[in-house]
Amino acid sequence: MHIQIGLLGCGTVGGGVIELLHKRKQKIAELTGVQASIKKVLIRDLHKEREVLLDGETLTTDAEDILNDPDITIIIETIGGIEPARSLILQAIAQKKHVITANKDLIALHGSEIIEAAKEANVDVYYEAAVGGAIPLIRPLKESLTANVITEIKGIINGTTNFILSKMTATGADFTEVLDEAQQLGYAEADPSSDVDGLDAARKLTILSTIAFHTKVKLSDVRVTGIREVKADDVRYANELGYVIKLLATGTETDDTLSLCVAPTLIPKDHPLAHVSDAYNALYVRGDASGDLMFFGRGAGSLPTASAVLGDAIDVFRNLTHRVTGLQDSSYLSEKPVVPDKAAAQPFYLRFSVQDRTGVFAKIAGLFGEHDINMETVMQKRICDGSAEIIIITHEVVPTNIDRLRKALEQLESVIAVHLVMPVERA
Amino acid sequence: MHIQIGLLGCGTVGGGVIELLHKRKQKIAELTGVQASIKKVLIRDLHKEREVLLDGETLTTDAEDILNDPDITIIIETIGGIEPARSLILQAIAQKKHVITANKDLIALHGSEIIEAAKEANVDVYYEAAVGGAIPLIRPLKESLTANVITEIKGIINGTTNFILSKMTATGADFTEVLDEAQQLGYAEADPSSDVDGLDAARKLTILSTIAFHTKVKLSDVRVTGIREVKADDVRYANELGYVIKLLATGTETDDTLSLCVAPTLIPKDHPLAHVSDAYNALYVRGDASGDLMFFGRGAGSLPTASAVLGDAIDVFRNLTHRVTGLQDSSYLSEKPVVPDKAAAQPFYLRFSVQDRTGVFAKIAGLFGEHDINMETVMQKRICDGSAEIIIITHEVVPTNIDRLRKALEQLESVIAVHLVMPVERA
Repeated sequence: MHIQIGLLGCGTVGGGVIELLHKRKQKIAELTGVQASIKKVLIRDLHKEREVLLDGETLTTDAEDILNDPDITIIIETIGGIEPARSLILQAIAQKKHVITANKDLIALHGSEIIEAAKEANVDVYYEAAVGGAIPLIRPLKESLTANVITEIKGIINGTTNFILSKMTATGADFTEVLDEAQQLGYAEADPSSDVDGLDAARKLTILSTIAFHTKVKLSDVRVTGIREVKADDVRYANELGYVIKLLATGTETDDTLSLCVAPTLIPKDHPLAHVSDAYNALYVRGDASGDLMFFGRGAGSLPTASAVLGDAIDVFRNLTHRVTGLQDSSYLSEKPVVPDKAAAQPFYLRFSVQDRTGVFAKIAGLFGEHDINMETVMQKRICDGSAEIIIITHEVVPTNIDRLRKALEQLESVIAVHLVMPVERA
Repeated sequence: MHIQIGLLGCGTVGGGVIELLHKRKQKIAELTGVQASIKKVLIRDLHKEREVLLDGETLTTDAEDILNDPDITIIIETIGGIEPARSLILQAIAQKKHVITANKDLIALHGSEIIEAAKEANVDVYYEAAVGGAIPLIRPLKESLTANVITEIKGIINGTTNFILSKMTATGADFTEVLDEAQQLGYAEADPSSDVDGLDAARKLTILSTIAFHTKVKLSDVRVTGIREVKADDVRYANELGYVIKLLATGTETDDTLSLCVAPTLIPKDHPLAHVSDAYNALYVRGDASGDLMFFGRGAGSLPTASAVLGDAIDVFRNLTHRVTGLQDSSYLSEKPVVPDKAAAQPFYLRFSVQDRTGVFAKIAGLFGEHDINMETVMQKRICDGSAEIIIITHEVVPTNIDRLRKALEQLESVIAVHLVMPVERA
């Protein structure tokens, strides 16, 4: 069987897809009986120099050229962003073409629209590459673990912030300094806010939670804190206390309600997630039968992402040779309410500065008592200008209660500022 | 659609399958549209008391009762061992029933016979639970990573030895002492040899390598060393040098040849595999496009294994509702020769005792030089009876050369005994 593909976009990911398909043509043919080739590639500028070597692919700047080509049965979308990707994919589906996309923004925001359209048209939509690069996450969640009720997912799913935090941990440098370096190395974009403010991780968490909890999760359901407020001091204090700081995305199901959170988090050094460094990603999954599982690997990059895209494509090849669609299930069983108040209690790290006077600590301790929050660890660092910095790790508290404590602390006359409040993972 | 299952065996795994299916009936029905139930269960003794609660399942001691029942379309085999499991599965396949098995021994030794028979009969055979318990390994290798050439797999895939080695590391106790405890706790069997001598890990490595390298791997291709010779001293020395000892199963492809090995191995403390403790399993996979991936989770136990078995069953449900078989590919592209001589060079750890006399070390150093093996780390521990223990970590050496060195050392007059030679993983 000969299958022809239309590729939308020829950047880092698209170029990787072309390169990898050239390399693997023969293996794919031997395994699946399918001769696969990319017939046409949608690009913006015909005159731009490209590093990727073409082998019969036609370049075009006109999407209709691809979407109306009846020989093309599969569309691979690697443009990214919402438009024109969304419209092109919906058009392709309307033309009964199967779709593979690496587009996390689009799936996070318009996933259900696209999946519904595909169901209607009886074509498949695969998007393994949208989260975690090369790491198989969506397939295990949709297939292998179906016999479980998943109660928690927890992951490091943004490479840029993990690179920055790993570098801050290794060198003791401050956030802004490392961000500059990451931008020079191409690990962070000129406008880094989508990464460092936690939005990218929140989008991926939306996609994963929708699948893991069989419910429609909205991006706005996620409580998001980025890493801008994490200072070199926090990294050092965390280290002294036996932790590393990671931007953690967590989704938890309790009593049929969800809580979803992206935040810099203290992870015990002997926790497997503590060792996920640099551009690596990892996802922890807790199933009621499976117990704890972890998936780890390269979260981005040209060939790792192409590995996931072509893994999906080979699935579609198999479906086409077997004349079957809709095998990968995408039903929502419920729309579980997102209730931050019901989020599971956990310890929190607080760093705040106070006037260095007698009696101040007693007042603070009193405030903790009033909020029914116990302290597990207390560190006080004297600062020369008459102020002191206090670092506290609490016993387990629900997030809304820690929010109330933070406000109360900020209103205390002797408290100069509350700098950072972060959740703490148990070992 | 109503699908009826025949369950062979009702031990730890079979009981878990019954329990989990009862719990998940409704979710499975909502997701797949399939009403699934276990119609009959093959047991040995009708009068034995069982912990599992039955809900309409009929117990029988006669396999024909199940195999000849035309209502039963899926067989789940949880008996374990070679016979009668092999014959029953082949009979079930001949009766056009789909088969799900958790039987690593059978798949390692007779996998290709069973898979060929299933292809012939146009039914599916799934065996995710045979390796790594709840961890999705076989599906990612067969599907998600198909676009890669996999060059290396490396894993902790035997829970008993990992429990023993973790305990030895935590407590400083010796092997025999910890084995006793593991047996009392039910983590090790009365005859522990299949686990502690590395055979169980070798069988699982055979299964994984066959899939990862698309080649027929025989159990006898695996170079196997167990953990009986690992002493409390080795664990302590490893710790001093920055390592932990794990029973590692590795499969490596170099220039179209394979090398397969199960051996106690020194793992750097900051390597992700170093943190896989107790009954957890983990598999590292290196793909040429994906880069390094790791899969981690519970390698055994009633419900974790049932999670994998039912994950497979749900796949078969989907196949049945879509009237499709043979989607999960099982082609061998080649029979790659296993060439130990071509195994990649790596550092080795040696512990041996010598007579504590001047000039001895010079002789030993000379021997290393003759074999063109450089030392990276040398430790000498004096022992009161006039002998000394020497611990050496070498630079990279091919395994066959370290074998030759070991023999030469053993022939040296001043060497009392070579106690242990183990590979060392790079960070």
